[in-house]
Amino acid sequence: MQSLQQKASEWSGVHPSDAFAIDETNLFEALGGIQPFIDLSTNFYNRVYEDDEEWFHSIFANSVKEDAIRNQYEFFVQRMGGPPLYSERKGHPALIGRHRPFPVTHAAAERWLHHMQLALDSVAQIDPDSKVKMMNFFRHTAFFLVAGDELKNQRQGVACKHAASKPSSG
Amino acid sequence: MQSLQQKASEWSGVHPSDAFAIDETNLFEALGGIQPFIDLSTNFYNRVYEDDEEWFHSIFANSVKEDAIRNQYEFFVQRMGGPPLYSERKGHPALIGRHRPFPVTHAAAERWLHHMQLALDSVAQIDPDSKVKMMNFFRHTAFFLVAGDELKNQRQGVACKHAASKPSSG
Repeated sequence: MQSLQQKASEWSGVHPSDAFAIDETNLFEALGGIQPFIDLSTNFYNRVYEDDEEWFHSIFANSVKEDAIRNQYEFFVQRMGGPPLYSERKGHPALIGRHRPFPVTHAAAERWLHHMQLALDSVAQIDPDSKVKMMNFFRHTAFFLVAGDELKNQRQGVACKHAASKPSSG
Repeated sequence: MQSLQQKASEWSGVHPSDAFAIDETNLFEALGGIQPFIDLSTNFYNRVYEDDEEWFHSIFANSVKEDAIRNQYEFFVQRMGGPPLYSERKGHPALIGRHRPFPVTHAAAERWLHHMQLALDSVAQIDPDSKVKMMNFFRHTAFFLVAGDELKNQRQGVACKHAASKPSSG
């Protein structure tokens, strides 16, 4: 059976060593602190919440935009060498667990990445080399979550088969 | 509805600021590198796999001890300021997602912590102050995973109710 990491690499086309090249330097310090991350996430969610692709837009219908922005940039800051803002406020990132309510399909991953690439392009404080590193991380992570989502569906399927078979087994 | 973080704090008795005090200093560097983490996880899993409490022991029946040891110390090293060994090999820690196969009950959390306290006590290279910080982190995290486990059960319950009701609804 393929691991989450293997699926993420195969589907994203990004090798783990490229995905986690964000750890080669401290990006938080290199980019000069929190502001570029706030700008990135604000730009990203502005695009997402204005997306005219209804199927994608609707995934975020139950989330408050300001919360989504803060959750995202606090996680990015923490993961890219800054203070652990996310964990102090919300606990472990627990990426798969916290994405349970969302249908993270291949198409959703690609749409998410489409907006993120445009958002990255729009933040001048982030240098081109850091943009490449961050995009590799985002791309690998997006498909890691697709793999996590499939795991959820498989497992629920098995659990429900048992539940559904009970009434007719007597 | 209580968040994962709130449940973790209430059930563990550990405030988030104490749980994430591991981030105040670089514990990996303070402890002198990887060896204390290898020793800790080896000692911990030796205890777990020799536990005469069968209900707890059996949770690990499908895992290979050497893999469990490596997964754990690579995560600890990464989370406590060392190189991202875990992510390079396995991807995001995704703590809740990766604990899906295991029944993380309150009793299991307490038994895990019982063994971890003894394991910590046995590693002389870890100073008493670091032990306190690490134990607060472990205790909070253990109950964070109990909260994650309950989320899983709730969600599966809902999904299965739908599946089970289909045959009789026609």
